[in-house]
Amino acid sequence: MILFATFRGLPPHRKAFAFLKYFAPILEWGPKYKFTEFKFDLLAGITIASMAIPQGISYARLAGLPPIIGLYSSFVPPLIYAVFGSSKNVAIGTVGAASLLLQSIIQQAVLPANDAKLYMNLFFTAAFFTGVFQTAMGIFRLGFLVDFLSRSTITGFMGGTAILIILQQLKGMLGMQHFTDKTDVVSVIHAVFHYRADWQWQSFVVGLIFLTFLLGTRHLKKKVPRLFWVSAISPLVVVILGGLLAFLVKGDEHGIPIVGTLNKGLNPISIGDLVFTSPYLSYAVKAGLIAGFIALAEGIAVGRSLGLLKNEQVDGNKEMIAFGLMNIGGSFTSCYLTTAPFSKSAVNFHAGSKTAMSNVIQAIIIMLVLLFLAPLFKYTPLVALAAIIIVAMIGLIEFEEMYHLFKVDKFDFCVCMVAFFGVSFLSMFKGLLISVGLSLIRALIHVARPTTSKLGKLDVSEMYRDIEQYPEAQSQPGILILKLGSPIYFANATYLRERISRWVEEELSSNKNGSDLQYIIFDMGGVTSIDSSGLGMFHEVRMIMSQKGIKMALSNPRLEVVGKLVSSKFIEMISAEWVFLSIKDAVSSCNFALQELRTGPEHV
Amino acid sequence: MILFATFRGLPPHRKAFAFLKYFAPILEWGPKYKFTEFKFDLLAGITIASMAIPQGISYARLAGLPPIIGLYSSFVPPLIYAVFGSSKNVAIGTVGAASLLLQSIIQQAVLPANDAKLYMNLFFTAAFFTGVFQTAMGIFRLGFLVDFLSRSTITGFMGGTAILIILQQLKGMLGMQHFTDKTDVVSVIHAVFHYRADWQWQSFVVGLIFLTFLLGTRHLKKKVPRLFWVSAISPLVVVILGGLLAFLVKGDEHGIPIVGTLNKGLNPISIGDLVFTSPYLSYAVKAGLIAGFIALAEGIAVGRSLGLLKNEQVDGNKEMIAFGLMNIGGSFTSCYLTTAPFSKSAVNFHAGSKTAMSNVIQAIIIMLVLLFLAPLFKYTPLVALAAIIIVAMIGLIEFEEMYHLFKVDKFDFCVCMVAFFGVSFLSMFKGLLISVGLSLIRALIHVARPTTSKLGKLDVSEMYRDIEQYPEAQSQPGILILKLGSPIYFANATYLRERISRWVEEELSSNKNGSDLQYIIFDMGGVTSIDSSGLGMFHEVRMIMSQKGIKMALSNPRLEVVGKLVSSKFIEMISAEWVFLSIKDAVSSCNFALQELRTGPEHV
Repeated sequence: MILFATFRGLPPHRKAFAFLKYFAPILEWGPKYKFTEFKFDLLAGITIASMAIPQGISYARLAGLPPIIGLYSSFVPPLIYAVFGSSKNVAIGTVGAASLLLQSIIQQAVLPANDAKLYMNLFFTAAFFTGVFQTAMGIFRLGFLVDFLSRSTITGFMGGTAILIILQQLKGMLGMQHFTDKTDVVSVIHAVFHYRADWQWQSFVVGLIFLTFLLGTRHLKKKVPRLFWVSAISPLVVVILGGLLAFLVKGDEHGIPIVGTLNKGLNPISIGDLVFTSPYLSYAVKAGLIAGFIALAEGIAVGRSLGLLKNEQVDGNKEMIAFGLMNIGGSFTSCYLTTAPFSKSAVNFHAGSKTAMSNVIQAIIIMLVLLFLAPLFKYTPLVALAAIIIVAMIGLIEFEEMYHLFKVDKFDFCVCMVAFFGVSFLSMFKGLLISVGLSLIRALIHVARPTTSKLGKLDVSEMYRDIEQYPEAQSQPGILILKLGSPIYFANATYLRERISRWVEEELSSNKNGSDLQYIIFDMGGVTSIDSSGLGMFHEVRMIMSQKGIKMALSNPRLEVVGKLVSSKFIEMISAEWVFLSIKDAVSSCNFALQELRTGPEHV
Repeated sequence: MILFATFRGLPPHRKAFAFLKYFAPILEWGPKYKFTEFKFDLLAGITIASMAIPQGISYARLAGLPPIIGLYSSFVPPLIYAVFGSSKNVAIGTVGAASLLLQSIIQQAVLPANDAKLYMNLFFTAAFFTGVFQTAMGIFRLGFLVDFLSRSTITGFMGGTAILIILQQLKGMLGMQHFTDKTDVVSVIHAVFHYRADWQWQSFVVGLIFLTFLLGTRHLKKKVPRLFWVSAISPLVVVILGGLLAFLVKGDEHGIPIVGTLNKGLNPISIGDLVFTSPYLSYAVKAGLIAGFIALAEGIAVGRSLGLLKNEQVDGNKEMIAFGLMNIGGSFTSCYLTTAPFSKSAVNFHAGSKTAMSNVIQAIIIMLVLLFLAPLFKYTPLVALAAIIIVAMIGLIEFEEMYHLFKVDKFDFCVCMVAFFGVSFLSMFKGLLISVGLSLIRALIHVARPTTSKLGKLDVSEMYRDIEQYPEAQSQPGILILKLGSPIYFANATYLRERISRWVEEELSSNKNGSDLQYIIFDMGGVTSIDSSGLGMFHEVRMIMSQKGIKMALSNPRLEVVGKLVSSKFIEMISAEWVFLSIKDAVSSCNFALQELRTGPEHV
């Protein structure tokens, strides 16, 4: 592994400690931890814990899980992250989109109504695979794969998911008992009207009041950014006020359904509950990988963008290992998938969190809630949860970003819309798949069809530039100068060979006297690497050129490329004298040789 | 569509004809066709037809289809290709690897023993989807996707498949009745020994004789290349001699099983036989797409490499449309998947084929066989087919290429071995999938982690070069020059932002007096395109730099990139004066400004 190189030269016990510190940054910052930092972390920790309670309960319900699982998931994973995580800004918790994605996949295996225990165990199993997958991605340094989930894909996916989730909340807002398990817009809207006999006006009135309150605090945050904490604690206020109301008026008997029993006590161990038997295993793996990938993309992006504001670098591969360990640990202790949600992390950041200690504080508060207060949350009205989720989801629909994409890049906008409508009308999985596919194809076009250009000399400055870009650039008689501007490997070698032949054909046919072209110079400055197909391409081109009596020269190749060209005997074939430091040198040599060729016979 | 641009300016009827000629090259070469060409095409056509008969029968049996289907497939598709194909060198027919791949997928849906008619119809349906898929790839110009099937993947896949097929032929060589349907090495070897009671020594002796003969002619071809036709017709000789032998000694009663009844008559129409019902449809689609992709990769590569020898360009997208139409047409007329097999096309080329007319000749001969001679082939001994297949497959195992990969590029070698062993021990599909995945990940690394480099000035020549490559290059005090060498888009924008920040940090920390760094110059010559994420990256970098009081300059950006930088207001922000034609100009301006900054206060 590459990272061991960093520790080379240290004595064994210091090497071991350096290694531990690398994987568990708490060993780095823990010993130096100061009380002044603790004050900030305490405040931030309390704030995010106040978000964790309503969010944990809401998203667990979104996933079709018992609400207590949401609280469990806000206790163990933040502790594990505090040990292994390298970002000082993110807050750990459950997320809405991944919860719904997990639900939509795991419900294909079993419905909670049929076997609630198995359904729950599949969530733990999925979290386990998420963890293994994330850890493996980190260890094998595959973090770059996350970059292929483009911004436009994520915007569309999140927007479509948010629309879906908001529509689903009509169940809670209207106090309905019956609903659909399906997760597409048409089925959900159909269900809302199909079961309209269920509608309860009391729920709806209470819901509207909560919604207005939450939207009000959200508006306040936008106007007066330093009051962000009002908006952060407002969901907890809604839960408490709603609970009081439901308790006082016996809501469940008067059209305001409540969450129902929550037991006291910490997370039960769930290692033995993981399901590794067919046919369930494949669903758990699928759910774990896909939701894990999405969660990773969100978590890494959040860490990076908050880090950027403080000008701190986040090591994506190390973060993945932290997320992975946290999910594996979670799956052993009755937690489902967690990551660093954007909203919660932003609050943590603005509340002034200095280290991952704020996640420890969050965990301790949730622990106290689990030990002493959990049963009180039984009175939480479902409509309060619905209102909380709706407001959280509104924040995920980025109309401005979509408009920006539309203005700047139509293809990006298409990808975004495909994800948006794919998620809301087909299925979350298909929408995501199609738009990732589109992004990928677009990325691959760049790889497979690199730009090559013909260079000419600018008289004023003796520089060589692309003739298409600078029409005043003069091509040199008898010499064709081509700039190859990318790594050369299997994905583009065939294309490049054909493109080069075409340049040569054009050059030959543009001269009335075809035999004029004597030299072809490749500007190799941009060729950062080459593989066996690329080497094969050079040999083929040399063969074709020598048939036409054209001599090849290279200018400014990079060391590693020269090394491979030497070992494949290419340099030997064109002879080392024909490798130059600059185009200018190459052109001089060619001109000199041309001169000799032309004047030679006269001297005889 | 881009291609319409070519016809702009022509009057409508000529436009229509130009369009037709573009899609059906026969309209181009047909009217000019000369008798001198016909002589060559006739000879080539006869030669490839003589290969088509034994190969058609063999590969159809390999796929588990009635042998006559192999002959049908050598009649209609070559005719269609002759109309639409643009390569003058390739010969159309069925291929071994794709036949086995189709068999392995379609047998998951239904076994030929259970419902031979449905099994066959699924092959037609798969060919239909192959055709639709190939045509669509061509129309949407997705030909570049084929390049991602790297040479090393294909070498490994073909080698593994060949090993598998050779082992399977032990059934025929030993005259066995019972065998396995599975297509992995372990199951096949197990089956050979499990049913050893079936072994027939007569078959084995005849098989060894045929094998020796075929290998002998193959060896002759290597020694005396102009006698390639001996090796080309030898399979037909084996079929005829074997048939005579089986007829004379009543082989089927004496341990030499024969092919059995073949009916006279041309291809029956099979449009009505296509199966579009669940659960069969998904297998047909899967088989059609995967086998179609492999077949396409082989067909395009063959066309290109033979074209290369004559220095002709092959338009991959147009070829795909031709292959696609040929397979759609085939699926309507009782044919299964066809492409341009390497061995047959090479023979066609060496026999001197001048145009696609050789495929027409082939088709006419096969038509005559179907009309008059087909029943005679009933006596073909299975052991003859086994020997023919074994010799054909030996040619597909490229040990030299594998050794070459091992020497030149260890990663390519790994990909090749993964495909090789994956195909032979897991399944054809999984082996292919894993090694394509590996190739793809490798391609994506180049995309996601482009090389950036710090430039310094070489004193001798006033040129700026990578400091790591040229340690004598001098960095300019107060100025950091970075070369960005690739398109900038979502897949690498985040990475580049972080990499640039790291360069700046390193620069700041290497100077004792950190405030020294005043200017950062980006050499943009290699940035061939940029998307919305890339633009966002530049804005973020500018923000970070201006916080540090560092000014940004661009050198040598390309026109399309400048256009986007202008429309996103980036140029406005750094001001147009800070965009330069060359690094030299940029450095001069920075030095001039630095001079003013330093001397300024003294003058006050």
